[in-house]
Amino acid sequence: MTRKAIVLLSGGLDSTTVLAHAKSIGFDPYALSFRYGQRHAVELAAAKRVAEAQGVADHVVCDIDLRVFGGSALTSDVEVPKHSSVDQVEENIPITYVPARNTVFLSFALAYAEVVGATDIFIGVNALDYSGYPDCRPEFIKAFESMANLATRAGVEGGAITIHTPLMDKTKGEIVQMGLALGVDYSLTSSCYDPDESGRSCGHCDSCLLRLKGFAEAGSSDPITYQGV
Amino acid sequence: MTRKAIVLLSGGLDSTTVLAHAKSIGFDPYALSFRYGQRHAVELAAAKRVAEAQGVADHVVCDIDLRVFGGSALTSDVEVPKHSSVDQVEENIPITYVPARNTVFLSFALAYAEVVGATDIFIGVNALDYSGYPDCRPEFIKAFESMANLATRAGVEGGAITIHTPLMDKTKGEIVQMGLALGVDYSLTSSCYDPDESGRSCGHCDSCLLRLKGFAEAGSSDPITYQGV
Repeated sequence: MTRKAIVLLSGGLDSTTVLAHAKSIGFDPYALSFRYGQRHAVELAAAKRVAEAQGVADHVVCDIDLRVFGGSALTSDVEVPKHSSVDQVEENIPITYVPARNTVFLSFALAYAEVVGATDIFIGVNALDYSGYPDCRPEFIKAFESMANLATRAGVEGGAITIHTPLMDKTKGEIVQMGLALGVDYSLTSSCYDPDESGRSCGHCDSCLLRLKGFAEAGSSDPITYQGV
Repeated sequence: MTRKAIVLLSGGLDSTTVLAHAKSIGFDPYALSFRYGQRHAVELAAAKRVAEAQGVADHVVCDIDLRVFGGSALTSDVEVPKHSSVDQVEENIPITYVPARNTVFLSFALAYAEVVGATDIFIGVNALDYSGYPDCRPEFIKAFESMANLATRAGVEGGAITIHTPLMDKTKGEIVQMGLALGVDYSLTSSCYDPDESGRSCGHCDSCLLRLKGFAEAGSSDPITYQGV
C-alpha cells in the first residue's frame, strides 16, 4: 500500500529533489507550498510546474503573511545581499533569515498531515550549506518531531509522526547528483532570492551561488537561464 | 525594566485573563490574534475590545487559512455540537478540534517574539477543562518550548524562550476568580463557538457551557448576553 506523505515544496532545487525522493521510496505525496509575502513569488510558479511534472496526490498553497512581523530581507524591503563568489556567503545567521520560518511551515505541514491522515512529512533542510539557519539543524528537526507527536491525534492515539530530511547531510553537489539520478528536470525549478520580472535568476545571491556550486560539483550544468547571460 | 511578551489573544475568557495576568506580573504585552477562517469571527471583535481596554504595546491580527485543509467544525461546515448540560461535554478529542492549531498559533507567536525581541510567550491553554485536546497538555507545551529554543536566534545565541501557561491547572471557576481579582471586564469577551449575527452567545456549545460553569463556580454571573435570554 502506498503511504501518504506531506512534502514541503518551494519549487527550488532542494525541495524538488526531496519530492522526487519521496516518490521514489513509495510515498504518495501531498505537496504544500506557501504564499508568505516573499518577494520571490516566482518560486510558487516553479512549485506548480514541479508538482505537475512529477505528479502529486494534491498540491495546496497556503496564504500566510509573515510580513506583519517584519524582520527579514526575503519578506520586507531590505536589499538582498549579492556576492561575486560562493566564499562570501554568510556563515553566521544571514539577514535573509525569516523568523521561525521552518517552525511555521512544519506546523502547517502537521495540520495538513492530520487532515489527510499522513504521519510522514518531508522537508529539504540541509545542515551543510545553510549552517547559519538555526531551524535547518538536525537537533531542531528532532525537537519538532517530538513536539509533533504530543500535539496531534496521531501522537495521542499511538501513531508516530516522522519528519524526513533526506538532504540533511548532503552537499549541494550530492543533492544535484541525487536529483539527476531520479530524473528530476531542474529546468522547472527556481532558487533565486531576487529574480527579475521574467523569472530569471540573478546568479549572485546566496541561493544562486550555492545552486551553481552544486551543479559544478556534480559535474553538470544548471539548465535555468540567468540574468545577463 | 519592563519585559516584552507575546500574548495569544482570542478574545475569549481564558486568553483575556492571561493578558491581565501577564500585565500584572510586569510584562509589556504584544497581543496576537488570528483570522483563521473560523466561523466565530465575533471573537476577533472581542480581541480588539479587550486589547484596547487592557492596553497593549501592539496588537497584530494574522491571516491564516486552516480551511484549505478542512477537518474541523470550527472552520468548516460541520454543525457545532450543542448540549443541555456541561456533563455532556466531550471527554475524548472533540470534533471541534482544529488540526495542529496551537502548534500553528505558537509558531506565529515565536516569529513575532523573534521580531520584537521577546523571549516570553503567554497562552491560555488549560489541561482540566480541555483534556480532549492533545495540544493543551503540559507535555506538549514543554516540547514546544524545547523546540523553540532550537529554532530561533534567541536559542542559538544563548537566550531562552519561555512559554507561560498560567491557566494550565486551573478550573474554569478559578480562572474567572483570577480575572475578577485582576479587574478584568468579561463583558468585552466572547467564547461561543456559534454566536448569532449580533454576536450573542448560544449558551449550549461546549465553550459556552464551560464558561457558564466557570462563573457559577466562582459565585459570579456572566455579564455577556445569551441568545433567547
